Amino acid sequence: MSEQLTLYLYKIELALAEANAPHRTYEVDLLNKPGWFASKVNPVGEVPVVTYGGPNVEPDDPSPLSAKIAESNVILEFLADLYPDSGLLPKDPVLRAKVRFFMDASTKHIEGSCYAFILGKESYDNILKGIEFIQELLEEGGDFAVGDHYTIADACISPFLARLKMVTETDLGRARARRFPVGMGYKLGEELKGPKFAKFMKYVQQMVNRPSLKQSNDEEFVITFFKTRFSERVQ
Amino acid sequence: MSEQLTLYLYKIELALAEANAPHRTYEVDLLNKPGWFASKVNPVGEVPVVTYGGPNVEPDDPSPLSAKIAESNVILEFLADLYPDSGLLPKDPVLRAKVRFFMDASTKHIEGSCYAFILGKESYDNILKGIEFIQELLEEGGDFAVGDHYTIADACISPFLARLKMVTETDLGRARARRFPVGMGYKLGEELKGPKFAKFMKYVQQMVNRPSLKQSNDEEFVITFFKTRFSERVQ
Repeated sequence: MSEQLTLYLYKIELALAEANAPHRTYEVDLLNKPGWFASKVNPVGEVPVVTYGGPNVEPDDPSPLSAKIAESNVILEFLADLYPDSGLLPKDPVLRAKVRFFMDASTKHIEGSCYAFILGKESYDNILKGIEFIQELLEEGGDFAVGDHYTIADACISPFLARLKMVTETDLGRARARRFPVGMGYKLGEELKGPKFAKFMKYVQQMVNRPSLKQSNDEEFVITFFKTRFSERVQ
Repeated sequence: MSEQLTLYLYKIELALAEANAPHRTYEVDLLNKPGWFASKVNPVGEVPVVTYGGPNVEPDDPSPLSAKIAESNVILEFLADLYPDSGLLPKDPVLRAKVRFFMDASTKHIEGSCYAFILGKESYDNILKGIEFIQELLEEGGDFAVGDHYTIADACISPFLARLKMVTETDLGRARARRFPVGMGYKLGEELKGPKFAKFMKYVQQMVNRPSLKQSNDEEFVITFFKTRFSERVQ
């Protein structure tokens, strides 16, 4: 399931950029993990992981005194807690619940169907169903997933929006190989051009135009398929 | 998947009880849903749902002015936001991340394997693997999932602990029928009695002894298999 990890990390990079949060990143080769990664950072061996606090050490010699936090959506919430004035989460409890419901919906209805399509395991029917669900949550004319500010809901779904845009415009899957049947990416793109998905596509355009995403997205194109990173915040 | 819904709701009831949060509950017959439920409360038709705010109306005539919040873990976070001094979530960002990581682990490693076993779809091997994962997260001698206070992490996992206790002590599944092979519940109980799971079982005992769980658990025994409820907070 290494495919998922780069995207998960990507979410974190977006939130860090949107919050102007100082941090360091470090690449971990998941196919050839350094020994210290499991012993000193994450016993499960998965990325993303954020180390937080403790002495200001080199990323490849992490301190036992720093907290190690894993799971992308847990890290997103953590960043929102660290930067309460960033707007990554609104202050109002009902709006916060809307952000979390959107993240839950993105995880349940978009992530899995995108991977299944790109890996050639499923047609894009479930992507369209997921998009319909997500579109219902979007406000007419709104620029963001929830309310009038960039939140961790936007960070959570944006990597998939960027991937979807690439797949539908180029018919290419991930860096390594195209896995779905030739032409299906374009066909999905045609379906999404219809009036039925106009609200969703407007939201996609807003998100992929953000500097935070352009920056991470360019970068993502050059890193290899199975490589990914973990982030360490600068103290 | 109606089986899951009662448990999901159950989580919410525990958190409400632990926070002493005033609320109303209303039973929804999921096999014969009233028309107003989808049109006025949750278009997806699922429970749990919390309605919050708006005028103080009857539960079967919900107001369009109240917020409707779905998904059990989203509702748990919402309750923690509404009652910031309840301790349902700690104040410290790192501890909050630990609570959320525990909830994520419970959802990923315990929920699915418990249902699969109880419904006779899988052996209990994945339950034991999930318990090993969760046990690693528990602190030696601690009474709670995280830190020294009851949090939404405890509320998230407790329904499954209660179910596990019942299954291993009575060899019975849910109210409707025993689905797993006869004797397997007892056998799972024997496995859990070993020293390997001592830390986990101590935590189980702490949780099932809490008044909040005893109260909900008795209640759960009498409600029918496919019936469940939604909660409306009293204004």
